Amino acid sequence: MKWWLFALSAGLAVAGFGVELSFDGVDRQINERKPGWLSKAEALRPTLYRETLKPVGTVKVVEDAQSFQRLKIGETGNDTATADFILDFGRHLTGYFRFKLKAGSNPLDFPLRLRFVFGETLAEVVGNPDEKPTGLSRAWFQDEVVNIDFIPGEVALPRRYAFRYVRCVVPEFNRAKQKFSFDGFSAEAVTSANPINLAEGRFGNEEERRLDTIALNTLRDCMQTMFEDGPKRDRRLWLGDLRLQALANYETYRNFNLVKRCLYLLAGLSDQDNMVRTDCYDQPSPHRGDCAILDYTALYASTLLEYLEASGDRATAEDLWPIALKQLQITLRDVDENGLFKKSPMWCFIDWDSKLDRQAPEQGVLLYGLKRTIELADKLGRRDQVAAVEPLVQKMVTAARESLWDAERKLFVSGPDRQVSMASQIWMVLSGAVTGQDAKDCLLNAAKVPDVRKPFTPYLRNYWIEALDVAGLRDTARKELLEYWGGMAKRGADTFWEGFVPEDDFFSPYGNHLINSYCHAWSCAPCYFLRRWAAPAR
Amino acid sequence: MKWWLFALSAGLAVAGFGVELSFDGVDRQINERKPGWLSKAEALRPTLYRETLKPVGTVKVVEDAQSFQRLKIGETGNDTATADFILDFGRHLTGYFRFKLKAGSNPLDFPLRLRFVFGETLAEVVGNPDEKPTGLSRAWFQDEVVNIDFIPGEVALPRRYAFRYVRCVVPEFNRAKQKFSFDGFSAEAVTSANPINLAEGRFGNEEERRLDTIALNTLRDCMQTMFEDGPKRDRRLWLGDLRLQALANYETYRNFNLVKRCLYLLAGLSDQDNMVRTDCYDQPSPHRGDCAILDYTALYASTLLEYLEASGDRATAEDLWPIALKQLQITLRDVDENGLFKKSPMWCFIDWDSKLDRQAPEQGVLLYGLKRTIELADKLGRRDQVAAVEPLVQKMVTAARESLWDAERKLFVSGPDRQVSMASQIWMVLSGAVTGQDAKDCLLNAAKVPDVRKPFTPYLRNYWIEALDVAGLRDTARKELLEYWGGMAKRGADTFWEGFVPEDDFFSPYGNHLINSYCHAWSCAPCYFLRRWAAPAR
Repeated sequence: MKWWLFALSAGLAVAGFGVELSFDGVDRQINERKPGWLSKAEALRPTLYRETLKPVGTVKVVEDAQSFQRLKIGETGNDTATADFILDFGRHLTGYFRFKLKAGSNPLDFPLRLRFVFGETLAEVVGNPDEKPTGLSRAWFQDEVVNIDFIPGEVALPRRYAFRYVRCVVPEFNRAKQKFSFDGFSAEAVTSANPINLAEGRFGNEEERRLDTIALNTLRDCMQTMFEDGPKRDRRLWLGDLRLQALANYETYRNFNLVKRCLYLLAGLSDQDNMVRTDCYDQPSPHRGDCAILDYTALYASTLLEYLEASGDRATAEDLWPIALKQLQITLRDVDENGLFKKSPMWCFIDWDSKLDRQAPEQGVLLYGLKRTIELADKLGRRDQVAAVEPLVQKMVTAARESLWDAERKLFVSGPDRQVSMASQIWMVLSGAVTGQDAKDCLLNAAKVPDVRKPFTPYLRNYWIEALDVAGLRDTARKELLEYWGGMAKRGADTFWEGFVPEDDFFSPYGNHLINSYCHAWSCAPCYFLRRWAAPAR
Repeated sequence: MKWWLFALSAGLAVAGFGVELSFDGVDRQINERKPGWLSKAEALRPTLYRETLKPVGTVKVVEDAQSFQRLKIGETGNDTATADFILDFGRHLTGYFRFKLKAGSNPLDFPLRLRFVFGETLAEVVGNPDEKPTGLSRAWFQDEVVNIDFIPGEVALPRRYAFRYVRCVVPEFNRAKQKFSFDGFSAEAVTSANPINLAEGRFGNEEERRLDTIALNTLRDCMQTMFEDGPKRDRRLWLGDLRLQALANYETYRNFNLVKRCLYLLAGLSDQDNMVRTDCYDQPSPHRGDCAILDYTALYASTLLEYLEASGDRATAEDLWPIALKQLQITLRDVDENGLFKKSPMWCFIDWDSKLDRQAPEQGVLLYGLKRTIELADKLGRRDQVAAVEPLVQKMVTAARESLWDAERKLFVSGPDRQVSMASQIWMVLSGAVTGQDAKDCLLNAAKVPDVRKPFTPYLRNYWIEALDVAGLRDTARKELLEYWGGMAKRGADTFWEGFVPEDDFFSPYGNHLINSYCHAWSCAPCYFLRRWAAPAR
């Protein structure tokens, strides 16, 4: 209760900065344009590139203590005449699955009841999802029971899956073996990433090239009619993920229209208060998710600015400018009159770490969002519209330095317990609240604190690499990148994962690793950084 | 081994009757016409009548020791917002199922995994098919797991089911309830029985009318693109079932073309020896089953003769005459030179009773088939073609009286152990091997023998009624009919069953009653007999 009351008074405090005054006309503009934004998003719905793939063969899965999740591919072959076999398509793909059934020498005198399990990893196809409860829906586990009345024939499963492996279980096999056989399997991979646009990267070594390839595949399989966070789960556009995907996309597939479509979707689906919400769905028709993450909303303007810089599409930036500006009113309402963020009724994400104190990282993100909005205004010749909030930048920097900086230890702390986290240092560095030697110091000092809260997800790892780079520590950034993403590669990743905890192969934010997404766009950092670092400085 | 050798020599013995000589030209005729027969069957593929049905409500199922299979309908209502509910469509139907899903106030943020169980009976929807092993495929149990990615939307399940009840299990319900709701269910009932052709029956009382109605519904739901034995299982055309369906159909829906189509299917799909096999499938394209039941094949000519009599379609009878005649060669090859049947390598069915000795009943069926073929020849002016086999009629009657008639007890016995069964008396009476008082005696005497093998299936029960009637015992026939089929009606049958053992509600030929067919055409006798008995003698 108290929390909400605090939020309300903080909102009023923002009004005291005079921010609302200059934003009045903005709401009218947004409301006028909003229906058009959704139409534009619809007009930008991409045609998907389709590729037909055949399995490279069948694989047996064997236990192996040294391998990822204690499983590895054992014997390989081409035997689809057993009661239980696993097809290997040789690569990760997002798409569809079909197969043909051939009649045997005797007529099939009963329906076939087949079970198919689709897996991005070996564990998913051999594991039992019902063994361990998960906080998420059981239905994210990709398995289907298919009853087939008539053969011969071709069966196309109706849903889209994300997979490399397909396990086929034929419960009636003993009776059925003279009565039918499989006559070919195929997959149709779909993506809105056009490989023709992909520039050849320049890499320092084979390891870097390999990480780039895995990241490209990750990005490709998440690029559908919108940027999805993961094609297995949630298959949703998330603003925080979008920003990282868009940045990687500019360096690789350069599908500017897909970013444009996502910016329009989020703007068109903003809520009744014109808040750009955090997530949305594209099917059966575009609709808003029910999440509102403060630190994601704070990045909308930055994502629009980066789109403008990469594509040169000023018309879109002009069109969406009012809603980018509007987000300041929302994201700054929990900043108090001294320029300090304390708490928000909104979901403060930063990272999947329930013990993380969010104050300092959110202070950094909000400041970063404010500064990027001002940059965007500058680019669009709208500096006048943000004049009222410009003094807030210095105020927030000062508040951060006064309230959150531990001068003795040369690092930022967060919350009443003065928690030390990498998240705090990362976002303070990225926001420019700290620069030069202090920036280097806080990143490196915090990393040495024994109980420092480290980045948990590849999402925050991405900003960790970025912050090191921004602080002038590119060698460390590169080393950290190669170590973390290289850790997934060493474990056999075809695409990069939603979560990776080097010391726990079975880590899952949801209580069951089988429900994890193993192709997750927020993990596509290598192709972004490695290609940028190889390119001449811009 | 010995059995097969015997069969071979029996075949040669038939050659000794000179039967082959007169059939030589027949094989050539059959081979010339066979492709055309399949084309004619295809041209006769019927348009199905379609009716959309809504559920009458939801039902709770409660245990009740007095009810069929110890289950009855308890509370009724209309609540589809629970995690597990049962829809009642109020009648049995063969057809399709669809439903609509409506979005809730919050977006659905995971796929829905729904389970649907279709049941002809209450036991099927509340039972667990995996609890008891069955000799048949688990897939005959009609359940589907359906994963749904997007709502709102309409979902049409792709397969055809036979059901009155549909259970819907919503495993994610607790999380899902604010996120979706069902927005209507419907079924599309399909049949090739046109109710417009149905003449009003005249019945002695309400009980008879009720049995007629249940039988009509049984017949209706088995009339699809061909006469199916059961729309749940096997969904196949079986020659033995066809004959009973055709006879009932002439008294009711009068779809002569459907019988014609089935006669052409069986003829067109006869094997390389021109044997009319026992069963066939219509999808994905017409093909032969792998069963060869001697007593079914022996009834092909009779089925054709009855079609000719009912429809007056002489052209079809002429067209199919060669293959009807040909079956004599096949069915009589296991009759020895004295006119006695002993054993056959073919499947001798007669009834689902593994302890039944088949000698006498098969002797009766084969003799019946022979006589009906001669009748058909007579009708078509082809008596010359059967002249060589006509003496065999008396030979077989004599063999039956000499080897199988127990003059002391006035009944037929069968096999080396001189088994007394109703099946023996039934087929001897129907074949005319015994008439007058002897016919009455054998039927009634056998029924009194303590360990007599009684009819097990409604299929043989049908011939029991027929034999009583033929023997001039119509009152007993009527009483037996009302008692047996009335027993199913009392137990709440919507359609008549594949199997009914009054003292065992859980009887199944397959080890699990959940796999039984509860709408089975060979059980449609009431509408045949009751309507014939009411009509003026023909």
